[in-house]
Amino acid sequence: MLQKKSTIIFIMGVSGVGKSTIGNLLSEKLNIPFFDGDDFHPEENILKMSKGEALNDNDRLGWLQTLNKLAKEQLKKGGCIIVCSALKEKYRDILNAKIKENAKWVFLNGSFEQIKERVNNRKGHFMSSDLLKSQFDILETPKNAIDININLTPNNIVEMISKEILKKSEFGLFGLGVMGKSLSRNLANKGFNISLFNRHIKDTEEDVAKNFKNEFKELSTSLPFDNIEAFVNSLEKPRKIMLMVNAGKIVDDVIEDLLPFLDAGDILIDGGNSNYNKTKERFDYLKSKNIHFVGAGVSGGEEGALKGPSIMPGCPKEVYKNVQPFLEAIAAKDANNLPCCTHIGTEGSGHFVKMVHNGIEYVEMQLLAEVFVMLKALGKNPDEIANILESWKATTNSYLLEITVDILRKKEGDDWLVHKIMDKAGNKGTGNWTTIATAELGVPSTMIASALFARYTSFYKEERVNASESFKENTTQNLNLTTGDILEGYQFARIINHYQGLKLIQEASKSYHWDLNLSELARIWTNGCIIKSDLMVELVTVFKSTDNLLTDKSIIQKIKALKPSIKKVVSEGVLNELAVPNFSESINFLNSFAVANSSANLIQAQRDYFGAHTYQRINDDSNKFYHTEWNN
Amino acid sequence: MLQKKSTIIFIMGVSGVGKSTIGNLLSEKLNIPFFDGDDFHPEENILKMSKGEALNDNDRLGWLQTLNKLAKEQLKKGGCIIVCSALKEKYRDILNAKIKENAKWVFLNGSFEQIKERVNNRKGHFMSSDLLKSQFDILETPKNAIDININLTPNNIVEMISKEILKKSEFGLFGLGVMGKSLSRNLANKGFNISLFNRHIKDTEEDVAKNFKNEFKELSTSLPFDNIEAFVNSLEKPRKIMLMVNAGKIVDDVIEDLLPFLDAGDILIDGGNSNYNKTKERFDYLKSKNIHFVGAGVSGGEEGALKGPSIMPGCPKEVYKNVQPFLEAIAAKDANNLPCCTHIGTEGSGHFVKMVHNGIEYVEMQLLAEVFVMLKALGKNPDEIANILESWKATTNSYLLEITVDILRKKEGDDWLVHKIMDKAGNKGTGNWTTIATAELGVPSTMIASALFARYTSFYKEERVNASESFKENTTQNLNLTTGDILEGYQFARIINHYQGLKLIQEASKSYHWDLNLSELARIWTNGCIIKSDLMVELVTVFKSTDNLLTDKSIIQKIKALKPSIKKVVSEGVLNELAVPNFSESINFLNSFAVANSSANLIQAQRDYFGAHTYQRINDDSNKFYHTEWNN
Repeated sequence: MLQKKSTIIFIMGVSGVGKSTIGNLLSEKLNIPFFDGDDFHPEENILKMSKGEALNDNDRLGWLQTLNKLAKEQLKKGGCIIVCSALKEKYRDILNAKIKENAKWVFLNGSFEQIKERVNNRKGHFMSSDLLKSQFDILETPKNAIDININLTPNNIVEMISKEILKKSEFGLFGLGVMGKSLSRNLANKGFNISLFNRHIKDTEEDVAKNFKNEFKELSTSLPFDNIEAFVNSLEKPRKIMLMVNAGKIVDDVIEDLLPFLDAGDILIDGGNSNYNKTKERFDYLKSKNIHFVGAGVSGGEEGALKGPSIMPGCPKEVYKNVQPFLEAIAAKDANNLPCCTHIGTEGSGHFVKMVHNGIEYVEMQLLAEVFVMLKALGKNPDEIANILESWKATTNSYLLEITVDILRKKEGDDWLVHKIMDKAGNKGTGNWTTIATAELGVPSTMIASALFARYTSFYKEERVNASESFKENTTQNLNLTTGDILEGYQFARIINHYQGLKLIQEASKSYHWDLNLSELARIWTNGCIIKSDLMVELVTVFKSTDNLLTDKSIIQKIKALKPSIKKVVSEGVLNELAVPNFSESINFLNSFAVANSSANLIQAQRDYFGAHTYQRINDDSNKFYHTEWNN
Repeated sequence: MLQKKSTIIFIMGVSGVGKSTIGNLLSEKLNIPFFDGDDFHPEENILKMSKGEALNDNDRLGWLQTLNKLAKEQLKKGGCIIVCSALKEKYRDILNAKIKENAKWVFLNGSFEQIKERVNNRKGHFMSSDLLKSQFDILETPKNAIDININLTPNNIVEMISKEILKKSEFGLFGLGVMGKSLSRNLANKGFNISLFNRHIKDTEEDVAKNFKNEFKELSTSLPFDNIEAFVNSLEKPRKIMLMVNAGKIVDDVIEDLLPFLDAGDILIDGGNSNYNKTKERFDYLKSKNIHFVGAGVSGGEEGALKGPSIMPGCPKEVYKNVQPFLEAIAAKDANNLPCCTHIGTEGSGHFVKMVHNGIEYVEMQLLAEVFVMLKALGKNPDEIANILESWKATTNSYLLEITVDILRKKEGDDWLVHKIMDKAGNKGTGNWTTIATAELGVPSTMIASALFARYTSFYKEERVNASESFKENTTQNLNLTTGDILEGYQFARIINHYQGLKLIQEASKSYHWDLNLSELARIWTNGCIIKSDLMVELVTVFKSTDNLLTDKSIIQKIKALKPSIKKVVSEGVLNELAVPNFSESINFLNSFAVANSSANLIQAQRDYFGAHTYQRINDDSNKFYHTEWNN
């Protein structure tokens, strides 16, 4: 059985190497026609040869073009085998013209002595050493051909060739957007044979996979498709197909499109930012169809995907083993050269931690935006701010700090580009989902919510402009802060951000019985992802001894040392009416959390008063609930 | 056709009033047996009467007991009609014994002259004036009987009786928890005939409806049930059934239980705190069954439900007309004596606004808790704090302020009760849902989220105690605030809270095409509900001219006047490490919102840098999206 995709198989090599024999046998095995190139010489060539004259390249040109035309015709009919010495690269180029994608080359390879002996052993054949030697003289060994030594028996040779011809890809990439393309190149660069699929949409998405393959050298052995069945059939079983499509309903659509062609045990990997609840649903659904499903968070953006992202796959452990060689090969490497990819936990856990990763990212970005606000209020221009942030790298480096320095330095004409950007922040849903998850799980991730709301607030541009008119004060700003205060406040807020984000993950791990390893999580976030930072490196060690940052001695000391600065920064920010909601949230959280006896007793009394919701009492181990008639 | 519930109909009145005639005719009409009480006298009574001697009460006792026994037997078989003079209350008590629930009394009523004339006109009858007079002498007019004047023709009388007997309730109440009971009494007090249903659960919920009916006089004409079919059949069509069951899956279960007995056009009203998305789903589902569904938010707690709640019904306008007389009758009344109930909008809108009502309530409670924190930090005890809050009523009154004063004054022994309440705040989900809704709708309701998170934070009691050890400072508190500062900060924060809550409603109204009227909403929240306040009364007027509080001149002036205090309060709170997250959020919101050019431009640049998310530009009306290679 030939693979679905039509192929022209050229069998090349010097005279007497056995091309026709192999061609005929292969034709029988693969059930496609066989053509001997020599049968297609024009009369003038035949005449010349019969006179014992050698053909020159000019003589060959028309003949090779005829064979190329034959190949093109046969390709439409399902492919064929063409035998032709094709000793020079330029002959092969002519044969390959416009069918390169579908041409497979087999090079029958033997030494001068081998071939001489073979030919002379054949009845009624004789080849002069000179003729054979002249062929070896002009032979240019092909680069991308299946190279077969003629020592083997013809049947063995045919077996080897057909195996190579029918070779399946190890891994499939479905969806060639920005991230899908980068991951594909990453996989190919690591030496994997991959199949590439992108849908066909007339006029907008045509030949995406084919064009992409042609664009990058590393993809030369990859197989491009826009037909789902052919794509699936091109993969080794159990198939491993990574979906790189937009999160949402389209993932379900793609799954339905793929299902008819999949077999039990095949593995789908959703590498998009899917909602973890949906991942759980899809996991259960596909389980009922005997298909494995891996929900894999992938962070790092376009560049990370290409050079090494951080990957967070969630699935049963035994399924992970099947995808591990691929995912860990393409992942970024940590300081110890270990892959920034690890088995996270079951079903939705991979997408959950990726979601929270993005929530932490929202905060890290917002904190830098607020640093920007404060440093501007101190009269600094973007270049000066970039220089200040540059100096922070020594103690507080992070990927986001680095790119912020680049951004602030970017100019357009005489002005900084940042000044020309519309101040309405977009979002793709993961910050939103993290806020929803934290509300649902009963965890106070105040900073993530605050960062999300800061983006939402920015979106009401027109109302903001009106409000700034209504509430503008003529007070001159009197911001009593040093850049050192701001740096320390920033450091404080980042610790609280990481506490809250990982606390949310820990609580989810408890609720969903995921048994997550926070230290491993911090480790795979030390490289390849957007929130990689020096702090994250520290956390790898901290989380080895506790799941709760706020109980770690070194963290406690840092927080205590930084607290005076964050208090000052927030107090000054509020008094000067600066937009520093996320800085505020960080200290407000600690002030609310580090309270042995909070004011929630009053709230419980209020609830009991108007709704008879009852309350518990302190120093009461009975777990009883009390109700009071308060207005008697 | 008799109603499903078996009934014993007693027809009473003096001799000669026509009891047997009516009894016979009614028996034919209702298709149940007729018994003449006189046929059941024991021999000794018959003997006595034949001698012309009057029966005494002792003679009657055995006979009345025989009739009561007859009634009990017939009740099991589907009911019957029993004729008996039963002139005295105590005779009727014997007849009623153990079947009172199922007995209906008809009193054939006529004057002495009427009856004398009637009897004397009958062939072969004669009654002495004395005998008739003696009957009138002992007649005790029954209280709960259907009173029929014998002036009418017998057929008319039978018609009237059967109408009364078959009378259906106007409104059904399903579920007799705290709120269901209070609403039932409220409806009964307003003169409505209602049917009451509560499920039967052996040992835990037995005869709940029956016992409840017996407990309160106003429920004497209500019909109690623990059988769904009988309950549904007792209602006038189109039936109006209010579900007062716990929000969640149980609502769906109850709907499924009711459906087999409902008819097209019947109306179910969900008066619980259901999620508005679920309400929309149920609305659509029931529409497919030709049943109307009203999602009605009800606020006011137990007391409000009894004396007049605020009601927020969402449904098509024409459906509202059917439930309007009931809901508006039982609702609280505003200052103009208009009901605190109005048609909110379609499908989920009623539950949505109730949900946000609760979100606003979370904030109002949290702000008072933070006031409590600050006044405590100023060294005040609960009584002193109550006195301060008492003084705030003059300018800033609200229901929640009032109950807080009551709470703070409540003592247990030598200590204040509030000191003994466990400081872990519970929640029933509406604050959570509001936070989720605001995240989903892209609206920055920062204060509601903050109030929710404050409750969540309180819940980590053990971790809080540990953190308070780790982060405790020995700095003596130096809180430079007056109670006046705190009052003004409180006033400021409440305005922002109301802005945010109603903004969320307005945005939802736009998204879901509900076309809500914010002024009407504020009006029905001026009484009966938990968030009623003087401020809410003001907002009724403000929202008549704008949907955006922050554009109203009077509100702008207030905010500007209060801003110095809130800035001071938050600054001092943060510096003194007080838990004032919600106060902080209020000023942080304004500081973030009243900004013509925010720092979101930096966030857009970051997103474009690592994710190629693109950005828009200021002063660019093309709506084009740009991408920059930032690190070149």
